[in-house]
Amino acid sequence: MLNFALFGAGRIGKMHAKNIQSMAQANLKYVFDVYAPAAQDVAAANGAQAISTIDEVLNDSEVDAVLIATSTDTHVDLIIQAAKAGKAILCEKPIDLDTEIVNRCLDEIKECQVPIQIGFNRRYDPSHAAAAKAAQDGGLGKLEQVVITSRDPGMAPVEYLKSSGGIFRDMIIHDFDMARFVLNEEIVEVQAIGSALVDEKITEIGDVDSAMLIMKSESGKLVHVNGSRRASYGYDQRVEVFCEGGMAISNNQTATSLERYTKHTTQEKAPLHNFFIDRYEDAYNLQLISFIENVEAGTPVTPSFEDGRRAQMLADAAQKSLETGEKVVLAWS
Amino acid sequence: MLNFALFGAGRIGKMHAKNIQSMAQANLKYVFDVYAPAAQDVAAANGAQAISTIDEVLNDSEVDAVLIATSTDTHVDLIIQAAKAGKAILCEKPIDLDTEIVNRCLDEIKECQVPIQIGFNRRYDPSHAAAAKAAQDGGLGKLEQVVITSRDPGMAPVEYLKSSGGIFRDMIIHDFDMARFVLNEEIVEVQAIGSALVDEKITEIGDVDSAMLIMKSESGKLVHVNGSRRASYGYDQRVEVFCEGGMAISNNQTATSLERYTKHTTQEKAPLHNFFIDRYEDAYNLQLISFIENVEAGTPVTPSFEDGRRAQMLADAAQKSLETGEKVVLAWS
Amino acid sequence: MLNFALFGAGRIGKMHAKNIQSMAQANLKYVFDVYAPAAQDVAAANGAQAISTIDEVLNDSEVDAVLIATSTDTHVDLIIQAAKAGKAILCEKPIDLDTEIVNRCLDEIKECQVPIQIGFNRRYDPSHAAAAKAAQDGGLGKLEQVVITSRDPGMAPVEYLKSSGGIFRDMIIHDFDMARFVLNEEIVEVQAIGSALVDEKITEIGDVDSAMLIMKSESGKLVHVNGSRRASYGYDQRVEVFCEGGMAISNNQTATSLERYTKHTTQEKAPLHNFFIDRYEDAYNLQLISFIENVEAGTPVTPSFEDGRRAQMLADAAQKSLETGEKVVLAWS
Amino acid sequence: MLNFALFGAGRIGKMHAKNIQSMAQANLKYVFDVYAPAAQDVAAANGAQAISTIDEVLNDSEVDAVLIATSTDTHVDLIIQAAKAGKAILCEKPIDLDTEIVNRCLDEIKECQVPIQIGFNRRYDPSHAAAAKAAQDGGLGKLEQVVITSRDPGMAPVEYLKSSGGIFRDMIIHDFDMARFVLNEEIVEVQAIGSALVDEKITEIGDVDSAMLIMKSESGKLVHVNGSRRASYGYDQRVEVFCEGGMAISNNQTATSLERYTKHTTQEKAPLHNFFIDRYEDAYNLQLISFIENVEAGTPVTPSFEDGRRAQMLADAAQKSLETGEKVVLAWS
Repeated sequence: MLNFALFGAGRIGKMHAKNIQSMAQANLKYVFDVYAPAAQDVAAANGAQAISTIDEVLNDSEVDAVLIATSTDTHVDLIIQAAKAGKAILCEKPIDLDTEIVNRCLDEIKECQVPIQIGFNRRYDPSHAAAAKAAQDGGLGKLEQVVITSRDPGMAPVEYLKSSGGIFRDMIIHDFDMARFVLNEEIVEVQAIGSALVDEKITEIGDVDSAMLIMKSESGKLVHVNGSRRASYGYDQRVEVFCEGGMAISNNQTATSLERYTKHTTQEKAPLHNFFIDRYEDAYNLQLISFIENVEAGTPVTPSFEDGRRAQMLADAAQKSLETGEKVVLAWS
Repeated sequence: MLNFALFGAGRIGKMHAKNIQSMAQANLKYVFDVYAPAAQDVAAANGAQAISTIDEVLNDSEVDAVLIATSTDTHVDLIIQAAKAGKAILCEKPIDLDTEIVNRCLDEIKECQVPIQIGFNRRYDPSHAAAAKAAQDGGLGKLEQVVITSRDPGMAPVEYLKSSGGIFRDMIIHDFDMARFVLNEEIVEVQAIGSALVDEKITEIGDVDSAMLIMKSESGKLVHVNGSRRASYGYDQRVEVFCEGGMAISNNQTATSLERYTKHTTQEKAPLHNFFIDRYEDAYNLQLISFIENVEAGTPVTPSFEDGRRAQMLADAAQKSLETGEKVVLAWS
Repeated sequence: MLNFALFGAGRIGKMHAKNIQSMAQANLKYVFDVYAPAAQDVAAANGAQAISTIDEVLNDSEVDAVLIATSTDTHVDLIIQAAKAGKAILCEKPIDLDTEIVNRCLDEIKECQVPIQIGFNRRYDPSHAAAAKAAQDGGLGKLEQVVITSRDPGMAPVEYLKSSGGIFRDMIIHDFDMARFVLNEEIVEVQAIGSALVDEKITEIGDVDSAMLIMKSESGKLVHVNGSRRASYGYDQRVEVFCEGGMAISNNQTATSLERYTKHTTQEKAPLHNFFIDRYEDAYNLQLISFIENVEAGTPVTPSFEDGRRAQMLADAAQKSLETGEKVVLAWS
Repeated sequence: MLNFALFGAGRIGKMHAKNIQSMAQANLKYVFDVYAPAAQDVAAANGAQAISTIDEVLNDSEVDAVLIATSTDTHVDLIIQAAKAGKAILCEKPIDLDTEIVNRCLDEIKECQVPIQIGFNRRYDPSHAAAAKAAQDGGLGKLEQVVITSRDPGMAPVEYLKSSGGIFRDMIIHDFDMARFVLNEEIVEVQAIGSALVDEKITEIGDVDSAMLIMKSESGKLVHVNGSRRASYGYDQRVEVFCEGGMAISNNQTATSLERYTKHTTQEKAPLHNFFIDRYEDAYNLQLISFIENVEAGTPVTPSFEDGRRAQMLADAAQKSLETGEKVVLAWS
């Protein structure tokens, strides 16, 4: 049984609280949020205790793990404190928008032997995981190309996006992680293009809402990612692995398996899942189960802090390529 | 908050216990099973109390509802006792294999004003429910034909099937209920054929393992059901509604949305869900939620005892048609 | 090179003329129609000669084969004359609406050693043929159930249907042949139900527009056919074979492989092919090629006159079952 | 009726000869090939005359059009001669591997008022054409992204590829044309990466066998193409258009609509069409019909010589980007 403290009681924090509470092998003890009423609501709904400072958590030896779902700019500070207090950590992505700060965080905690898992939940999606497995288990021969489609259902207000770090660090970072997960090796070249096609006001904040990437891995495998802040037909999430002996596609999913036939169309299905909480419901649960099992067994959690840092560096490279129009080469050594 | 007692701690009882316990609006208080260790295990896993007689339940005024998941031959007795004790009842199908006994049960409890819901969970499957809605909401015009495919993944031993009541009362009864649900009117003619194709030993117990039905409703709509005790590719569960202005199919579902392309085949998907606990996971939960909400609101539960009785009568008619080779006409008055 | 005379220059005759003419191994020499201008048009469009009596054909020793695509009531007379003149015959289905007349035809021609192929073109559809092959080649184990969906896109005027022989002899006769083709054994029991759901005026002519059948083969395999005179979403033509080790479905086809995703629906495809000339374009050509090749090689043509007669007898049985409400048993001796 | 001369009697010439001959509105008069027996075979099979020099064609005033299907290095010379002789021209892609030569050809023929159509047949594929229409007809709102998958079923010997001009000029040139067709505006930025993943010997001839592109159009739309010389599951040809209000995908096609369900996989379909002659059968015919109709009506043929030249320039740009690692900007003015 793992005792959790949850930091952050917003939309995603609420979901995590429910997931923790539904598991026999986990218990939610504390909920913290800078906005106290949010913490109180989530705590009450899940039989936990709302707290107003995180010290209570850090000093309570019964707390085994913290789940960090606060705003991005607080992640690093909370990671450092929790790590120094010896708590296992499951932190939402990204670690921070600034890789320098991520690196400094790493320095600070390098002596702490706590497990830190970054919330790239899509690795735990059964269909994406099956695609990654197909890319690596040899059944289709060696992997040659990866094509990832990543389109959010709707665009947040430009005002909000201002502090998002840009489309690569905020949104496509998931796909950098997915690419690394599927490839099972590092990406060494990144080229990016982008446009303001959904809302041209996005250019005022130096960002784009539509982007395409081509990347090359150490052994020469090719990767494409296309992303958009708005897909009118729902949350479009596909991973295609093209191999020597075949191909596997983790395709989109609909809420029901109903197909409709009418005078004008056939085999119509329902719209895609609206967004991540619906689409990745299983992934969020499986991510948590994996974290719990590894923490209890003392085995490594995954994806790791270093996975989070590397996805971040790929996002930085993409941003640089977008801005300079040039290929960015990464040396990982 | 509804307090439940669970009668029956076998495979399906275990699932119900977990479902009850995962819901904020329900609590599992007692678990009973004739085999005490089973009751103890399920009770322990869900924070409930194992009991050795049902009297404790019937005398405990805190118990609002009983969920009956014991063997079929005990259903009627438990329904009568629970109804007389004023408990709301959710009973697994079928009520009994013998319609006479079902009718006598009805006589016994007709003064009891308790809600009784029969566990035809498939009505709550989101895809089948969407098909039923498509058949009735007018968007596709009036309904004309219903085609139901109902094939279990694997056949139980003939020895076990001996006391099952036959393929119609044991297995296809779900499809009689589905047909009535989708049609929204009564079936008045039934013709059935069957064969022993999976295991010819089934003939020794006077049963068949493969069956086909054609039926007609009051207004002349046509219904087909085909069933088999064994589909090697998994649990095949489809509902097709053919209407004046189009068609809707509640199609099969696979565990992932992965599609594979190889030298010999393309668009391969994973096998179908193995059986009802996987395939109808949502349906079992939604059935329970509906029961809880209706009991708490004092509104009618559905499907009702009468729905259970009528599906039973259709199963009887099918059995009679199989045996006589003749069309059986039902008058519902 | 096979020289053809075409009898009948209506819609389907026109298609056959074009198919014959497009083949390197065939030549269209004559076109006959009771309505001379139709014959002239089709002859002109295909470099053939329009004729006003069939004697020219029967006396022309250069003519190897006749393709009969006239109205049903003339088939038998033309078959007899052509057979006696020693011509190979490809005759559209049905041979005649009256099985007695078919039997008399058989008597008349039994000494003629000419190849006679009946136009059950669907046997030559690559997808249906693949389903039949899957049912028989052992890869899926032994066949247990066949489910055929057969829905025309639109209903002809009731006035026209008056002389059609009824839904079984006119339309579903194709499916009786398909069932025999897929089963590779005889059907021995037939039960049918039907309703007037599309246009209730059909009852005035003693017919139905919607029908369902269940049938059993010699070895106990089960067959279902459902049919409708009108499917608003196009020509619905499916063949499902359920076997010991798996299932194969010859599914519907759309004109393009375009899939559309919108706010309200996903994976929308184009409507189904409108009707037989589009849907079975390949089948009509492959049927003709098979006829030509077998005639030239002196090998048996298929489906044979006897296949045509047996499908007819199944249609009679279905009609009788519909009228009497009883199972009809066939003895094939 | 358009009289054709065919130059080139190889695999694709043979197909064109058959297509011309099957059309009522066209006639194949001459067949020329540097290898006389090939010309004779194709001429004989299609009722045409084999010739040993093209002068006979150019001097025969009955010849309306020439179809050029010879080796690429002869295209320009044949175009110039035929244009000067006043013949309408349908020329296989590419015009030439060297854009300088294409430009000189343009200079030479600029006074000739003959229609010249380049054989980018995929524009005529009904599914790709439907995708292009969906991108432009406004039903899905304005176009934002195009994703093209272009994978050949198998790789030609490296020895043969030596003179192919490289993957972009030889193979992906079709996709540059498709991108321009779907976009309906020019591409102004090209970035390419590539690897030798199928056969590393390809590097010895300075080529790659796997490539990815990202491109931007004048108005900022984003385009991705991925290509491979070898897809083990068949000829993978997809066009996806992502728009403001939805998405359309021209998906792959299989030879039959059969779906198989087995113990290990479900919804298996047949392999994809093997290669272009099967996959684009309709497209080749529709391309020819369009050419004939436009030539006869005196309306512009499409895609034009200029379309051919521009696809060529995009291939050059891609090649340059691959070699330099830099973005190539095109000014079309």
